[in-house]
Order: sequence, then structure tokens, then C-alpha cells
Amino acid sequence: MNILAFAGGVGGAKLALGLARALDPNRLAIAVNTGDDFEHLGLNISPDLDTVMYTLAGLANPETGWGLAGETWNFLDAASRLGGEAWFRLGDRDLATHIERTRRLRGGESLSEITRAFCAHLGVTAEVIPMSDDPVRTIICADEGALPFQEYFVHRKCEPRVRDFEFAGIALARPLPRLLERLAEADALIYCPSNPYVSVAPIVGLPGLRLLIESRRAAGMPVVAVSPIVGGAALKGPAAKMMIELGLDSTVIALAKHYAGTIDGLVIDSVDADSAPRIESLGIKTMATDTVMKTDDDKTRLARETLNFARSLKSRLTE
Amino acid sequence: MNILAFAGGVGGAKLALGLARALDPNRLAIAVNTGDDFEHLGLNISPDLDTVMYTLAGLANPETGWGLAGETWNFLDAASRLGGEAWFRLGDRDLATHIERTRRLRGGESLSEITRAFCAHLGVTAEVIPMSDDPVRTIICADEGALPFQEYFVHRKCEPRVRDFEFAGIALARPLPRLLERLAEADALIYCPSNPYVSVAPIVGLPGLRLLIESRRAAGMPVVAVSPIVGGAALKGPAAKMMIELGLDSTVIALAKHYAGTIDGLVIDSVDADSAPRIESLGIKTMATDTVMKTDDDKTRLARETLNFARSLKSRLTE
Repeated sequence: MNILAFAGGVGGAKLALGLARALDPNRLAIAVNTGDDFEHLGLNISPDLDTVMYTLAGLANPETGWGLAGETWNFLDAASRLGGEAWFRLGDRDLATHIERTRRLRGGESLSEITRAFCAHLGVTAEVIPMSDDPVRTIICADEGALPFQEYFVHRKCEPRVRDFEFAGIALARPLPRLLERLAEADALIYCPSNPYVSVAPIVGLPGLRLLIESRRAAGMPVVAVSPIVGGAALKGPAAKMMIELGLDSTVIALAKHYAGTIDGLVIDSVDADSAPRIESLGIKTMATDTVMKTDDDKTRLARETLNFARSLKSRLTE
Repeated sequence: MNILAFAGGVGGAKLALGLARALDPNRLAIAVNTGDDFEHLGLNISPDLDTVMYTLAGLANPETGWGLAGETWNFLDAASRLGGEAWFRLGDRDLATHIERTRRLRGGESLSEITRAFCAHLGVTAEVIPMSDDPVRTIICADEGALPFQEYFVHRKCEPRVRDFEFAGIALARPLPRLLERLAEADALIYCPSNPYVSVAPIVGLPGLRLLIESRRAAGMPVVAVSPIVGGAALKGPAAKMMIELGLDSTVIALAKHYAGTIDGLVIDSVDADSAPRIESLGIKTMATDTVMKTDDDKTRLARETLNFARSLKSRLTE
């Protein structure tokens, strides 16, 4: 099977690693949200791309899920001493990625070319695709006003109440051509267990992409989402808090309603198994399993089960 | 005494520290060569300014004289892994200086404002003055062609044979106003034991500065140089090698000829004491002492002796 996955940060990267272990790497492409990207201290930072890349390279910090294992923080320490900003945790090793990316972007290379070069250097064999080489910037419309994503997410620790989301620049952002090619040949499209509002939505919202996905679905390609909501809470990040602030329940049923009409299957956690009938009534097939990925074997198992589920949906769609 | 010192990197920084310990800090200003500055990996790097600043802050690496004590190299390690350039040794802590400086320069602050802020954060009480806020770039005219200074000095380890020097931009570079103010009130001007061609010459060569120094000398302010040449060799760096490649002897006598007419006194090492008569015949007073600064006490002692020598010259000039 050729698989295209859409991913945000830590949760998405975990399933991406499982998929990379479960599949021939040539069969796997991961399109990554770049709406979280920002410029900080003059550096171009792409948090989700780096999390996916580091995770697939086996370099990710196993405690946090983001950043590099064995990281040191001497830069940040010295920057604080000089009166610099230190709210965004830039590790000494991680900094190399941002400095080298920034240098190459200024030299005229595209984010996707740079990502491909980095993945080659780090031995990542699955194809990691930034959703677009054009800038898209997620803005959190909060009670107190508009906040750039990292300002909300890292600096303000997701405290402001969310009202809505904007993706600045998205109307002019072209989906990466390789993303469209991998979509055209995909046997299934998988939405990793990433935040539906700020990780999956910016990718799916790229001009023309939703129509292309629909035409692929019409041709028999299932779209399967893996729920980031387990037992009424988000495994990581602000998804559940956002759902409540948007006036929804923080449940897999509310998540299914969000995706209704756009996905064919939803992988839910066993603890949410009793929600399956309500979800199926929305026209979404479900598969319940243990979705909490602690070990690499958990990731591979969930990836395998998700692939089998997608395969079963594909044969149903093409019957 | 109000003292203005001109300094390059490691040797200059050592005497600057001695002067800072020997004087009331308000009495001391150090104008630092910025001809070595360059842009690398998108960062604005000012090697001599940083060496002087780190040394005066007590943060310098005692082994190398440049960089920070207790430095780590994880950034550079990670950059190499990503295929980045690693010939210029950027430590993790040092990187904070370059990133924060670059950020503030892009935000419209001047190099001198940023230097003042950094010195305040690091507790440096003597006034550290970049020679100019306008860019001057030292070019080594070598056998093989023109090389930017750091390319020659660090990347090529001073191997190319030197024929001449150019200071790109110097005709349009304005000496920093604070440098002129400190010169106007100086009781002596001291050329630290820095390379005469690539550390002192770019400062003295700033438009109008030589004339101002001459008018101060005419008013009784002595100029005292401390020799970076000891026993026919440079204590550090390529000064002696350059002298030979320029067809000169690498001796304090050749150094004295270089400075003849522009300085009043030359501090030479005791091992060169027998060169004193030849130097005095050029109209330059000499003082011979131990000029090799290993400990902080060495630096303070040499600074004190240099100050006393300058005081004796001043009383002679104003008799």
C-alpha cells in the first residue's frame, strides 16, 4: 500500500514512526503542518517538521517527544545572561537545524528542498513533505485578541481561551507538488493523531486540496483519522481544551462530528469503544484499539492496525 | 589618568584586562578593531569585540584566549551532521552573543549600542567601543588572491602568503563618536600588543583619526605601543609571519620602523632589550620588561608599567 499521512507535532510523529516501521519506506510520505512555523531570534523555525524528522531519525527526546535526545541548553543560558528572550526552548543541537535552515532559505532554497537534504543527512528514508513552500501562519483568535501560534502555544502555555483559528497566507499557499503526487498514488490517506484544528486543518485547507482528496475518495481511497482524543482528554496539547472553549464536548463523538463527511474511518481508543455506534451513525466506520503510544512497538502496532483498517475500508469503497 | 587603548583580539584583550584592573574603570576606554567582523551562517560575528568583552567580563576561555570558558560544542556537532559548515568554531554559549547581536542589528540598533548593552549585562565596567558602527572588512591580499580575513585566519589557518592588506569600506566608515570623545580627553593612547597590520591599522586608518591623534600628540598626549613581537616571533597570531612575507624582519626593530613617527614610546620585552638603542634612534622611547602575560597578575603588572611609562612620556612631552 502507498500511504500518505498528514501530521502535526508529537502525536503525529509517533504514528509516522510506526508507519515507517510497518511499511516499506518508499511507500510512505508524511505531509507536515507548517502553520506552526515562525521566525524567532531571526531564525526560521518549523517545529512540526523538526519533530517528525527527529522522530523518524530516531533522534527525538523520548521524554518530551519534541527536541533532540541528549540535548544541552547552554545557548539559552547564555542568551538569558545577555538579556535575550528564552521562552522558546532552543537546545544547542536543535539550533543547528534552525541556523542551517535559515541560511539555506536566505540562499534561495525552498523549505522542501532543505527538508529533503536534512532527511538525507539524518538517514530518514520515508518522504517528509512540508505541506507548502509558501508561508502559512496559524493565528489563534483568543478572547484577548489574535495570537501567533507559538505565542499562544509556548509563550502563553495555551492559557488564552480560543474562539477561532485563522491561517494567514493560506489562500496564496500552493500545496507542495510532491504532496499532490503522493496523494494521487496513495491507497489511503491517514490523519495522524494530531490536533484537528491547528495541525490537520491547515493542511487540508490548502487551496484545492480538499477537492483533490474528495476526488481520490470517490476513486476508492479511504481517509482514516486516528483520534488524538482519548477518554475525553487530549493525549498531548490543547485539543480537548480548545473543543471545550469552542462550545463542544471534548469527546471522540465531537471529533467525529468535526470530521464527518470528510473521513471514512476513525480509529478510537478502546476506552471510547461505546461511542462507536454514535460515530458510525455519522457515516464513519470505527476501529477501537489501544491508541496510547508509549513504546516504539506501540507505534508499530497501532500503525499496522490502522493500515489494516484502511485496507478493509478501501476494499469496501472499491467493491 | 584617562586612558584610551586600541585593541584587536587575544593579546589586546589581555592588556585591556590589565588596564581595567590597574585603573578606575571610568578612566578606561578600549576601542576595538571591527575589521575582522564577518557574516557567517547568517550571523553577524565580531570576533575581536567578543574577545575583549569576554576577557573583561572574566568569562574568556583561559586556554585559547578566545571564546568562553566551559564552552560546549553541540551546535557545531549537530550542524556537521546536517551538512553545515563547521570551520569557524562557534560554541553553544558563544552563539548566544552572535544570535542576539544579529537580531538587534536587524532591529535597527547599532553595533555600539548592542556592545554597550552586552557589557552592562556581563558586568564589564570599562567602556568597550567598536571602532565604528559602519562596516569595515579586512581583506588579506595573498599570493593566491584576495581573502576575507576570517577565511585567511581561521579557515586557511594563515597559510596563504600575504602581500598587502585592504580595509574594504574604511573610506566611508566614521570613527565612533565615543571614540573621538575618549581620545579628546585621553592622557595617553595605548596600542595593545595586537597585530599592527590587521588590528591596529584598521582603527588608526579610520578617516580623520590619524590627524586627530597627531593633534592630541602635539598637545602632549603620548602614544605608547606594546610590542606583540617578542624575540623575533609573535606571541600569538600571524604578525611575525606577515612581516617576513612583506619582506621585513620579524623583530621589534622592524615593528618600531612600522610605527616610527606615529608613536612616542614602545614597550618591548626584556629579551629584546639590546634593540633599544636602534629603536630610540628612530625617535621612539623604549621600556623593556617581561611582556608575556600568562596570569592576571602579569596583565596587571604590565599594564601598570605601561601606564607609568606613558606618564613619564607625557611629562616629557608637556615640559
